[in-house]
Amino acid sequence: MTHQDFLQKAIQLAVDNVKNNQGGPFGAIVVKDGEIVGQGVNRVTTHNDPTAHAEIGAIRDACKNLQHFQLEDCIIYTSCEPCPMCFGAIYWARPKKVYFACTKQEAAKAGFDDQFIYDELAISYEQRKIKMERLSSPEKLSPFQTWMKSSERVEY
Amino acid sequence: MTHQDFLQKAIQLAVDNVKNNQGGPFGAIVVKDGEIVGQGVNRVTTHNDPTAHAEIGAIRDACKNLQHFQLEDCIIYTSCEPCPMCFGAIYWARPKKVYFACTKQEAAKAGFDDQFIYDELAISYEQRKIKMERLSSPEKLSPFQTWMKSSERVEY
Repeated sequence: MTHQDFLQKAIQLAVDNVKNNQGGPFGAIVVKDGEIVGQGVNRVTTHNDPTAHAEIGAIRDACKNLQHFQLEDCIIYTSCEPCPMCFGAIYWARPKKVYFACTKQEAAKAGFDDQFIYDELAISYEQRKIKMERLSSPEKLSPFQTWMKSSERVEY
Repeated sequence: MTHQDFLQKAIQLAVDNVKNNQGGPFGAIVVKDGEIVGQGVNRVTTHNDPTAHAEIGAIRDACKNLQHFQLEDCIIYTSCEPCPMCFGAIYWARPKKVYFACTKQEAAKAGFDDQFIYDELAISYEQRKIKMERLSSPEKLSPFQTWMKSSERVEY
C-alpha cells in the first residue's frame, strides 16, 4: 500500500464515523512496517470526552497494540491537520512522520476552528480567553523532588 | 476549601503517584461548585499511553462523571503548568479557569522539557523535528461534506 492508500483509509474512517453518527468528521491510522497498528476516529460527543480526537484515539490504540508508550518508526496518517492537542500528543508519541489530507483552513470552513487555540498558545496568560494563573505553594516542588529521589522511576 | 487547598490536593496526587510507581510526578483535579468532580495523574509508562498526562486524565474523568463533553463552570488545579497537548485539551474542555503550581521552567529542571514542543509549534513544517506533510487526495473533503449534509450531527 502507498502513502496515498493509507491516507485514503484514514479519510474513509472519517466519512464512516459521520455516517454512523459516532462523532466528528475525522479519522487517523498508525502504520508500522507497512501494517496498520492502530486507528482512531473522533468520539467527543458519543464518549463524552473532549480529548477523543482521531489522532489521540489512533495513538492510544497503536500504543496499546504495540505495548509501548512510544511510536518509534511509525507513520501517522490523518484526514486533517492536527489541532494543538493532537500536535502535542504526536510529539509525546514520537512517530517518524505524519501525513495529513485537509489543512486547518479547510477544517475551519467546515466549522472546526483550531486556529483559535494556536493563536491562544502564542499570547500571554493575561490575554487568554481561559485564564491560567500560577498559584505558588510551599509543597510545589515535592513531586519533582520525590521523582528525582526515586530509584524505581521509569523515564519517558 | 480554598484554591490553595485544591492545589495542594493536586500536588499530593502527584507525590503519591511517584511513591506508588504509577508514573510521572504530575497530578490534577477538576472542581465544580466547590466539589471535586474528577482527578488524574500521569500514567504514561504504566498504561503505555503517551497521552495519559494528569490534566488529560482529570478532564476525561470529570467529563465521564458529569456525563458531558464540556467542563462548563469548572476549575482545573494542576501541579504543573500544562504542556501543549494538555493546553489544547483544556481549550476543548472549556473550564472557566486553570490554576497551576510549578512553571514549565521548574518542570524542565526536573527533566520534563515541554518548551521543546512549544517551540516546535511556532516554527514552519519544514523546520520541525517530526515531519508533517500535506498529501492531497481527491476524497479529502468528503468527511466535511458528509458532516455538513448530516441532519443528525451533534456539534461540539
